[in-house]
Amino acid sequence: MPKIDVMNYSIYYEIYGNEEGEPLVILNGLMMSTASWTPFIDVFSKYKLVLLDLIDQGQSTKAVGEEYTQERQADMLKEFFQKLNLNKVNLVGISYGGEVAMEFAIKYQDMIRALVLANTTSRTNAFMQDMGKGWEYATSTYDAAAFFKISVLPVYSVKFYEDNLEWMRAREQMFNKTLTPEWYDGVKRLIRSAEHLNVTDKIDIINVPTLLIGADEDTITPLAYQREIQSKIKNSQMVIIRGSGHGSMYERPYEFAGSIIGFLETYDKKITIK
Amino acid sequence: MPKIDVMNYSIYYEIYGNEEGEPLVILNGLMMSTASWTPFIDVFSKYKLVLLDLIDQGQSTKAVGEEYTQERQADMLKEFFQKLNLNKVNLVGISYGGEVAMEFAIKYQDMIRALVLANTTSRTNAFMQDMGKGWEYATSTYDAAAFFKISVLPVYSVKFYEDNLEWMRAREQMFNKTLTPEWYDGVKRLIRSAEHLNVTDKIDIINVPTLLIGADEDTITPLAYQREIQSKIKNSQMVIIRGSGHGSMYERPYEFAGSIIGFLETYDKKITIK
Amino acid sequence: MPKIDVMNYSIYYEIYGNEEGEPLVILNGLMMSTASWTPFIDVFSKYKLVLLDLIDQGQSTKAVGEEYTQERQADMLKEFFQKLNLNKVNLVGISYGGEVAMEFAIKYQDMIRALVLANTTSRTNAFMQDMGKGWEYATSTYDAAAFFKISVLPVYSVKFYEDNLEWMRAREQMFNKTLTPEWYDGVKRLIRSAEHLNVTDKIDIINVPTLLIGADEDTITPLAYQREIQSKIKNSQMVIIRGSGHGSMYERPYEFAGSIIGFLETYDKKITIK
Amino acid sequence: MPKIDVMNYSIYYEIYGNEEGEPLVILNGLMMSTASWTPFIDVFSKYKLVLLDLIDQGQSTKAVGEEYTQERQADMLKEFFQKLNLNKVNLVGISYGGEVAMEFAIKYQDMIRALVLANTTSRTNAFMQDMGKGWEYATSTYDAAAFFKISVLPVYSVKFYEDNLEWMRAREQMFNKTLTPEWYDGVKRLIRSAEHLNVTDKIDIINVPTLLIGADEDTITPLAYQREIQSKIKNSQMVIIRGSGHGSMYERPYEFAGSIIGFLETYDKKITIK
Repeated sequence: MPKIDVMNYSIYYEIYGNEEGEPLVILNGLMMSTASWTPFIDVFSKYKLVLLDLIDQGQSTKAVGEEYTQERQADMLKEFFQKLNLNKVNLVGISYGGEVAMEFAIKYQDMIRALVLANTTSRTNAFMQDMGKGWEYATSTYDAAAFFKISVLPVYSVKFYEDNLEWMRAREQMFNKTLTPEWYDGVKRLIRSAEHLNVTDKIDIINVPTLLIGADEDTITPLAYQREIQSKIKNSQMVIIRGSGHGSMYERPYEFAGSIIGFLETYDKKITIK
Repeated sequence: MPKIDVMNYSIYYEIYGNEEGEPLVILNGLMMSTASWTPFIDVFSKYKLVLLDLIDQGQSTKAVGEEYTQERQADMLKEFFQKLNLNKVNLVGISYGGEVAMEFAIKYQDMIRALVLANTTSRTNAFMQDMGKGWEYATSTYDAAAFFKISVLPVYSVKFYEDNLEWMRAREQMFNKTLTPEWYDGVKRLIRSAEHLNVTDKIDIINVPTLLIGADEDTITPLAYQREIQSKIKNSQMVIIRGSGHGSMYERPYEFAGSIIGFLETYDKKITIK
Repeated sequence: MPKIDVMNYSIYYEIYGNEEGEPLVILNGLMMSTASWTPFIDVFSKYKLVLLDLIDQGQSTKAVGEEYTQERQADMLKEFFQKLNLNKVNLVGISYGGEVAMEFAIKYQDMIRALVLANTTSRTNAFMQDMGKGWEYATSTYDAAAFFKISVLPVYSVKFYEDNLEWMRAREQMFNKTLTPEWYDGVKRLIRSAEHLNVTDKIDIINVPTLLIGADEDTITPLAYQREIQSKIKNSQMVIIRGSGHGSMYERPYEFAGSIIGFLETYDKKITIK
Repeated sequence: MPKIDVMNYSIYYEIYGNEEGEPLVILNGLMMSTASWTPFIDVFSKYKLVLLDLIDQGQSTKAVGEEYTQERQADMLKEFFQKLNLNKVNLVGISYGGEVAMEFAIKYQDMIRALVLANTTSRTNAFMQDMGKGWEYATSTYDAAAFFKISVLPVYSVKFYEDNLEWMRAREQMFNKTLTPEWYDGVKRLIRSAEHLNVTDKIDIINVPTLLIGADEDTITPLAYQREIQSKIKNSQMVIIRGSGHGSMYERPYEFAGSIIGFLETYDKKITIK
């Protein structure tokens, strides 16, 4: 699979689905990578599905020694789209990826057809900043067990975690085997890149069809955060996935994918009630 | 537009959309009719959209002097489908229509491809029975103003009602002009047909792909009712429309239609997370 | 029990408890009267418990032909307090009574020691206005069964209603036997007196210790209304009674009384955390 | 202040308030100690207020090398009460202390007058067990900054944390100065003592007046946990403190203390609604 040079980064990406379809680009959450979306390749096959690793994610450049913000990710994204001739994209961002998507929309909304923001926030408040500091400590251990218990666990709802304990244990084992110090250092930089996010008062200029997806048991980015975003972006829609924590794509993949596809298939249809 | 004789009823129906598409049948809420869905004809045009007036609704037979239950509606529906050669339908029921859809699924689930239950309940509890009695009083007035304030108002969320006060006034005027004593008497029979609904302990035999749609400000059939249904129907999905009362199709038509279409486009796709 | 002339009204009141205790005055909800508080006489016996029927309630003057607002009730209350030499009262208002209590506090807060606002709102929004119109229709029937199903039922949570169905039936019977056309007409005037309530932007001048009591299943004055009041009144406290509808005093009398007494016993104590 | 030998532990305790009053015993949360309650001495002064450090808390014995459960704390408590001639106590437990209180009530409820369970759970589920493992890692750092960000931060609601950031920083500084490796090791043992708590199916034998206190933004022991406890303990009451996280005693001390005192002053009064 290809990499492409964008700004001073080498960006890894994968393209699936219908080459003639509308581009559907998914921006990963903090600890995710293109690989996280493998289960969704079939369900999104109607679209030209573009997955990519952001700076410091997966197989893209590790920006060792660099300090950057999510705006940098957005700028990288713009050039990435240009180089791939993606002129009008359906842009889906989850968590960290949703934050990048908002930064992107603020600067480059002409390149967006429709926008989906899932389990995300428009501001890293002091609570989240300090939670991020806790996660940074966890990355510093280079210890999968510690990192999993501290930083991965809160991604899930209590019930999902309990019902899927063996899967959780297997994931922790997989973390233990595959994650390198370079990966942990990358996560730390990603956390820092989000530390000063504050676009709450800027997103009201976003004027593309927008869907907010929340989850009723998300404790990392609670529903109130997405409601606030919805209140700022004119005519935006919002659905709540029932019985899910922050990681709605893992916990309730059908509701997650269905909400996105349903939105993309309907937002430009005419429905006149009043 | 056509009528068809089913059992001893003349059933009015309308068909739209793609004649070759999968059938998508919508079952109305109590006070609704085929006409209520006119705004949705475009958005559902990929499907063979089948709208119908249940017994005592719209232009179908007024069952004067008859006592019946929602199971009768389900039996009528089965014959209606057979006569129209609708063998495998996507069945969407909202409120009263969702109750009929569950009665239908319990007896005839082989005729269902996928099931959507919106803003509905599996049991008419004592509170709802007495609320129904209050609505019966309201129908007895044959007075649109009284009926609207007592029985229509609670369908909406507070904010939607306030934000759309002129539309509400216009609707009340329309009620005042168009509703006949026969219509009110029909509503009363419909209320009574739902009075003893109790399928909570029967729906666990439903084994078709099922989506529950709830609304976070629905006070007529609160979220707890749909959560209970979800807990009974294996592998069922549930999304919550944010910022809506009971009448989610009116208040948030895009989220309503998008949730249905997203579900229908994805439920049979393979997504393997674990 | 005594009546006293206040303005041009004859106001019925009852006094219980400790003659030397701090005055604790309870302002009734719309359909309530002094008699509603009989079960609470013991629990509040440490205080000088003052119950009264507001204008058009219970045994006080029926203000036939008069149009008035809740501010009139507040003005009446001020004179009532003066005539009874109640200089500094603990003022508890539930629902309608809470609205009167806010009107009173805005004009006469020097007469208040501490304020409790239960299941109430600072504004009669358009939804509530029209709900009130529905209740007016119900009063016009002079029919206890209709009135109960339309106007009393929503006071309760679904579970409480179902669990106490016999008590509900008994109450309806009691309504049927005891309520007179004069009573129904009085309720109609009370509804109208609240129709234009809007003190949301005035209550920020209230500077007495204040407790908000909400109930998690109150659909008449949902929690959001009390949260808004709390956000306006500086340093105000708020507790939520779990598992209760609008009529928290009936549904959860111990939590209701306990919250009031706990507040009154603690608000002036020194607790310094930070 | 005195210590007393109980079983093989030296238990530190403090007694305040009214020597003739009913005993009110408060059981600390995990990271708390008698010192945490200094701000509440005045508000509870009507009672004989008994504060104590449980095993491994504050100035009581550090049980180095010992493995124990919360049932051991309960057994210790029983002997502690006997030695101090506390025959019938009002027992308040917050979080970890609430868990000990339930263990105590299951075995020794004859010694309880009334029971208050705040921000607690009847079972350490798999999610909480792993969260506990994350906290254990945090204690292993002996680093106040890491420990605070990982284990203390989630105790608070987002808004409280943000509004009181300086206080949070000061607390972290205080942690940094005062906490010893022995303290961290003690916390680790306390966490482990709660790891296998599961009294959900035993608490239905509790037959003393019981109040549950929850907080609407508690993400460590969410409301659902206290609702479950309430559903098991007959006639138990429940109030929810509005706008608070897990540490309700810190965030909303007045509502916290008021709820306890209101309950203790009213639970044995006669209120007959039905």
